[in-house]
Order: sequence, then structure tokens, then C-alpha cells
Amino acid sequence: MTLDQANAHLSALQRRLTALQHATALLTFDGYTAASKGAAAGRAQTVSVLSEEIYSLTTDPHTAEALHTLNDHPRTDPITRRQAQLLLRTLRQMERIPREEYTAFRRLMVEADAVWHEAKEKDDFPLFRPVLEQVFAAHRRIAALCAPDADPYDYWLDYNEEGLDQARCDRFFSAVRGKIVPLLAQVMERAPLPDAMLHGEFPIPVQDALSHRLMRIIGLDPAHVGLATTEHPFTITLGSQQDVRITTHYHRDDFSKSMFSVIHEGGHALYSTNVDPAYMGTVLDKGVSMGIHESQSRFFENILARSEGFCQGLFPILQELFPDQMAGYDAHDLYLAVNRVQPSLIRTQADELTYCLHIMVRYRLEQQLFSGELAVGDLPEAWNALYREYLGIDVPDDRRGVLQDCHWADGYIGYFPSYALGSAYGAQYLHKMEETVDVQDALRRGDLSPICDWLRQRIWRHGSLYSPTQVFESAVGEPFDPKYYTDYLERKFTGLYRL
Amino acid sequence: MTLDQANAHLSALQRRLTALQHATALLTFDGYTAASKGAAAGRAQTVSVLSEEIYSLTTDPHTAEALHTLNDHPRTDPITRRQAQLLLRTLRQMERIPREEYTAFRRLMVEADAVWHEAKEKDDFPLFRPVLEQVFAAHRRIAALCAPDADPYDYWLDYNEEGLDQARCDRFFSAVRGKIVPLLAQVMERAPLPDAMLHGEFPIPVQDALSHRLMRIIGLDPAHVGLATTEHPFTITLGSQQDVRITTHYHRDDFSKSMFSVIHEGGHALYSTNVDPAYMGTVLDKGVSMGIHESQSRFFENILARSEGFCQGLFPILQELFPDQMAGYDAHDLYLAVNRVQPSLIRTQADELTYCLHIMVRYRLEQQLFSGELAVGDLPEAWNALYREYLGIDVPDDRRGVLQDCHWADGYIGYFPSYALGSAYGAQYLHKMEETVDVQDALRRGDLSPICDWLRQRIWRHGSLYSPTQVFESAVGEPFDPKYYTDYLERKFTGLYRL
Repeated sequence: MTLDQANAHLSALQRRLTALQHATALLTFDGYTAASKGAAAGRAQTVSVLSEEIYSLTTDPHTAEALHTLNDHPRTDPITRRQAQLLLRTLRQMERIPREEYTAFRRLMVEADAVWHEAKEKDDFPLFRPVLEQVFAAHRRIAALCAPDADPYDYWLDYNEEGLDQARCDRFFSAVRGKIVPLLAQVMERAPLPDAMLHGEFPIPVQDALSHRLMRIIGLDPAHVGLATTEHPFTITLGSQQDVRITTHYHRDDFSKSMFSVIHEGGHALYSTNVDPAYMGTVLDKGVSMGIHESQSRFFENILARSEGFCQGLFPILQELFPDQMAGYDAHDLYLAVNRVQPSLIRTQADELTYCLHIMVRYRLEQQLFSGELAVGDLPEAWNALYREYLGIDVPDDRRGVLQDCHWADGYIGYFPSYALGSAYGAQYLHKMEETVDVQDALRRGDLSPICDWLRQRIWRHGSLYSPTQVFESAVGEPFDPKYYTDYLERKFTGLYRL
Repeated sequence: MTLDQANAHLSALQRRLTALQHATALLTFDGYTAASKGAAAGRAQTVSVLSEEIYSLTTDPHTAEALHTLNDHPRTDPITRRQAQLLLRTLRQMERIPREEYTAFRRLMVEADAVWHEAKEKDDFPLFRPVLEQVFAAHRRIAALCAPDADPYDYWLDYNEEGLDQARCDRFFSAVRGKIVPLLAQVMERAPLPDAMLHGEFPIPVQDALSHRLMRIIGLDPAHVGLATTEHPFTITLGSQQDVRITTHYHRDDFSKSMFSVIHEGGHALYSTNVDPAYMGTVLDKGVSMGIHESQSRFFENILARSEGFCQGLFPILQELFPDQMAGYDAHDLYLAVNRVQPSLIRTQADELTYCLHIMVRYRLEQQLFSGELAVGDLPEAWNALYREYLGIDVPDDRRGVLQDCHWADGYIGYFPSYALGSAYGAQYLHKMEETVDVQDALRRGDLSPICDWLRQRIWRHGSLYSPTQVFESAVGEPFDPKYYTDYLERKFTGLYRL
């Protein structure tokens, strides 16, 4: 195969893969948003057929030949070479999975989500258990096929964040836990920060208006980023950077829950919509890893939106939208309220200090499930015990316990550590960013363009061109060090709680 | 190829086609409902790739061999043979269209819809004109390729309703017009029926509640039929009878507009969701033609929902949802209000008597556009002249004129006559149905099951197993005769207006 033929094959391949992935993503999005309950079986069937097409295209012998030609040829440009390498990585994994196993796996994730939904609604873990057992069994089988010599959980950690394994997670979590636990103990000895202003009656249409204001403020382009509501907020890319959807979940009694969801998902959407447009239609047109993705969302949600500057910029808008509810409060009250530390049940609504403890619960459980120490049937008990141990609280029901997240049902196993890592990456971005950008001033003014420019230039525009480590290290100029994160948390909560 | 091999090929083919059509339909639905403006280009690209896949599968030489084997083999059962025949019909047409022309055609329809949307919003026909010229040119080219010896407009009429051509349309419209025009003249001499009760302030959330009540009343299963809002109401099937979506458009000042849209689209959805489940995953799992489809929707919208019995059944629900607005009125007032005859601008909101005149305008224009008598650029003028001639009214702007319908933008050319034919089919169903079913009693009781059972048994369950003519004639026991329709209109409006 000549280089020209290989390039032509690559281009045709990516055109078709992009379309099939677009359709698959839209089926997923529709399943979460508009679809009726009875549509799940047909959706699973179609996803299964589309995944077969993806499998056939990827494992076609001509594809392997074209990708190897491109990867090996000295005249291949670096951007094309990276595309070939990423596709080869997928191809090598897919080749090891029999076609039936692969399509059954994709299909199972669609079916499991529908069961999870119903189980959460009914607070019925036994309903979810059989399909969750299948999900973990399938993940074990896939890991055994793709990386027979590796620990299966390590395989899935690396799948979500290139280079991640349990050893690295253990070191990271141990460093973070060593700081958070004593800091939390100190905080809990103080009087809680007042947060009454977040609670009250906040009509959904007004919260919806707030969502759109927030999306504008953080710099999202409404021509390319849509908003919907779902049980569990998420972000999804449909085909290309030109069509990204975020979702939120409104709670009438607390506007801040949806607010932080919108900002979190908005961070993902900023990354996804700001990849170099030249990469559209290729595998480079997406964030490079879950850890780098979550580092954007968690950065916007916490490091930016839970800062004093952001609260100052936002407060007048809250006054405008909720004049009665905000009466008698000011921006500093908002800053205190959104930073109240309180061990709680729901991860997505956790404060910044206890958040990583929620992740550590899930990490520990995934480890135990993969090692065989824990059976799926014993998950609720183990979940509740760890919440007691790590967060000191009792879980009243599975709805607010082991059934709260959609991740396992959707096949995002080994994903949770990305949230904690991403949170930590963000503190290191902030440290570097503040060398050249007055972050708090930009937030106060409600003009986030200097912040977005920094991130676009160093991270977003590259899409998947470089490895996660390359992107991270070139952005901050040094290797990852969790100390920036623990220092950040210590500084912030020492100030807030006058420790 | 053996019969078994042919059957296996047919089954695999339909499995893949169903999935690709499911994905394509969902892209269309999403484009109308949730997608941001900037998503149109990516959607067009993906639809284009998926249509290429459909083209490749359909025109594959093995497909032709399998379909011919099944069609010719004496041991093929009638249900399989019909599948083979329908697929052969598509195959024969597709084979005549070059691949590039076919995918460009599918892509153009996605792009044209986005332009139409913007043009309608801005009341800007010149913006729409170039793409509409392309749409008509493409339809002329496709007709010339697929049926070089036929009149191109006849080709598209037959495409939407097997066996339909201009000669049949002309006879039908002439019979209907000959009755409607004098009847309308008599009606217009009388005092208009009062319809003030339809006008006022009707909050959207309450109208939404009404939509769901109506969907239940007419017998739709909420597990399989969803509701969304769009600029132009429509019904779409996503993959199978298990996932059908209808849409409506709410007007705060008149609840009846959305109400009749919901019932109209609900009629389509009843047909689509009540096909024999055994046909799922095959080409038989859909309505057989546009005329039979519109005969369901128009039957529910008009013959049922604009009858006195239905108004009696519905009125207590309206009183419950809109107590203030309904105060001082009764069910008979509702019956009069929804049957007020008034030549008007918007087809979808037209009364039952003038409706066919709206269709005749469009039919005449399509004829002239295909014959070359009329250029796309002169459409607005021609549209307005025909509205003056047929309906006696002046069109104030293109938004409420030539830009009102999405059909041409979406490639539904030669479709409009189906609405008029469908309306007429319905009157003949009613005549036959009343031999065994007390229709008005069922409507009054709000229990439509005897009506739905009749339609399910005679029409819905067959899906596409028989030709439109076979379905129609076996349902009513004789050939189509527009006299049932004109008699029905005459009887109804003579009574209402005491002519």
C-alpha cells in the first residue's frame, strides 16, 4: 500500500467511524433525555448493529495495513501519525475481542443503564444486581482478552487515563487522604459556614435562565452547545466539536446543585468545543483522556466557580434572577455558602474538601470487586461501611448510596479516579496560570477570556494530539505533583474556616 | 443461492438497514428538537455517510440475488415475499441513481431544512430560494433516472402513494372542489359559528398536560410514544413500532391548535405502533403509504375529534384543566367552535371544509414547478395568487404563506395530495365502521377502544404487508369513492350551519 493509498484509507475510515460514533452517541443522548421507556430494547439493538459496523471497519485487514503504513512511513506528518497510532491502539484491543463479545458488551451497557434508572427510581438494588454482575464480568473478560498479563483493574484505569494504574492511584490517594482527613477534622470543629441563602424556592424556569447565563459567562457558544435535563448530569459530543450537549438536574429547593452541574459539564464542553477545528472528522477531535477532561470540569466547578472572585462576579446576576431569595445577602455570603464543608451522601453535590473521599470509596470498591474480595451482591453493605469509615455518615437508602451514580451501569469502570486526579491537576494549572493571568480579577469582572485563552492555548486546542502526560506537563512546565492540590485545599479552607 | 441462504441474507440485511434507518431518523428528530443551530453541518455529514451505507447494502449484488431468489421461489411464504418485493422496489430505484447523487440528495434535504427554518423565522424567501431550487432540481433528476419514461411529478406522487398520478389527482380534486366551493359559499353567507372559547390565555404547562391526556384518550401507549415540541408538528418512527415520537407546537392564545396537532400526529402514531409485532425489524413494520397514513391522522383529527361525541367526552377534561376559560360554555359550544369555517392562511390550522383547498394550492404549484410553467423564484407570487383564487384571502407575508410548511425543504414533494386523499379515505372508513360500531357513543364515553379495534384489525396491524389499495378496499369492502367524503362534509356542515 502506498502512502497516498494509506492516507485515502485513513480519511475514508475516519469519515465512516465519525458518522457511526455520532449516531451511537446520539442514541445514548436520546436514551437519557427524550426516549420513552419502551424504546430501550430497540436502542440496544441499533447500538449493537452500529458497534458491529465499527468493529468491522476497525478490524478490516486493509485498515491495519493502512495504519501500519502511515505509522512506519518517514514522510507521514506528526498529526497523521498520531491518528494512525490512536487507531492502532483501538485496533489492537478490538482484534483481541471476538466480534460477538464486543457487540454484546456495547449492547449490555445500553441495557444496564435502563435497569439502573428503574432501580434508582425504585430504590431497588436487587433489581440492578444481576445486570451489574454482568457488567463487571464483561469488564473482567475484556481486560483478560486485551491485557492478559495485566491486573484487570489496572487495564481499565489505563483505558480511561493512559499510564494510570493502582500503584499510582494508591500513592496519589494516600497523599491526598493524608492531608484531607486532618484538615477535615479541624474544619469540623469549627462552626459550619452558613448556607441558608442556597435553600428556598427557586422556580425551574428561572434556574434554566441562570443555566444559560452561566454557559455564556464561562464562554460556551450557544450555536454549538445545547442544554437538556437528565437524572444524572453529563456531557456528550455528537460527531464533532460543533455539536456538544450538556445536561443538568434541577432541584427546586437549592439552585446551587444545578448551577455547579452546569459549570462542571460546561468545563467539559469548553474542552470539547475548543479543539483545533483542523482535527474535525478525525480521532484527534476530542479530549485526550478522562483525567484531563475532568481536570477541565472540576477546575471550572471548583477552582473557578467556588472562588471569591467568581462569587463577586455572579452575585449581581443572582440578585437579578432571585431578588427575594437573595435579599439581605452579599457576594461574600455566597462565597461562604458554596464552600460549606459537610460530609454528605451525594458525590456530585459534595463540597470541594470531602469530594475526593467519595471517589476513594468508589476506587476501593472497584479494587475489591476486581480482586474478588467483594461480590456485587455485597456492594450496598460495603458502600455503606466505607461511607461510615471515610465520611462518618450513615447511608439511609441505596438511592442515595450505591445506586446514585450512572457510571457502573454505563460501563465507566475505572473512571472515578479521573475525577480526583482531574481535581488535583486543576490546582497545578491554577498555580501556573496565576504567573501570567489575574484569575480572580477576570472572575470578578465576569470576563473569563484570559482564563479560557490560557486553557485553549495549552490544553483544549490540542485535542488528542499528545498523550495526557505530555499535555499536562507542557501546560504547567513540570510533572504532576499532588502537593499543589493539597496546598490549595489547605490554604483555601484555612482561610475560610480561620483555622 | 439456496432459499436458506437468501433468508439469512434478508434477515441480516434488514437488521442492518433497520439500525441505519433508526440512526438516520433519530438525527432528523434531534435536528428538529434538541440540536443547536451549529450542529446542522455535522448532522448533514453523518446522514450522508449513513445513506451511503444504506446504498451499499441495498445495491450489493448479493442483496439482489437473495431478493430475487426469495421472490421467485415457490416455497417463500407470503410475508417474506412481500419483504423481498418491497426491498426490490427500493433496489431497482437506487440502482438507477449514482451513489454520489443519492448521498448528495439525502444530504441536501438535511441542509435545506436548516435553511428553511431560518428563512421562516426571518420571513425571508430569497434566503430559501437557492436551496429550494436545488431541491426541485434534485427531484427532477431522481425522477428522470428512476422513471425516464414517466412524468416526473407522477413519479413522486406514486412514490408517496403507490398508484397515484396526476390524472387520478385531477379527478379526485375536481370532484371534491365541485362540492366544496358551492358548500363553502353557502356557509359563508351564514353567521360564523362562535369560537371565542378557544381564545384566551392557556398556559403551556397546562396545554402540555392536555396533550398527555389526549394521547391516553386516543389509545397511545406512553411507554412507546413520546411527545416533544417543534416549529412544525410531525411524527417519526425511530427504528421500530416500539419507539415513535410525535411533536406539537403550543400557542398560548389558542389551546385548540396544539390539541388538533396532537390528535393528528397521534393518529399517525397509532398506526405506527399497532403494526403486528411479528414484523419488527423488517420493512413491513411501518404504514404502507402516505395516503393511508394521513387517512389515520386526519380521521382522528377531524372525523373523530371534531365530532359532537368527542366534544362531549372531552369537555369535562377541558373544564378541569381550564376552569376559568371554560366557564359559561358547554360541550355543544365546543363542537361549534372547532367547526367554525373560515378561509385562513395556515393549512395545519384550517377547518375541515377549507382544508382541501390548501392542498389544492400546493398540488397546483407542484404541478407547475415540475412542468416548468413556474420558476421557484416566482413561487411566493403564485402562492399568494392561488390563495386569493381558491380561498379568497390575501397572504400578508411569506412566513404565513409559501414558507409555512417544512415539506418541500424536507424533500416531501408530491406528498401533499396524501392529506386530501387521506381525509377522503377517512369518510369511507366512518361509513363502514358505523355498520358495526357506535362511534359517537364510544367518543362520548371517552373509550375509543371499539374504534381502535376496528382500525387495528383492518388497517394498522398489516403494516406494509399489502398495497395501499388492497388495505383500503379490504377495510371498506369496495373501491375508493370520494362521494363518501363530499357527502360527509355536506351532511356535517349543512347541520352545523342549518343550510
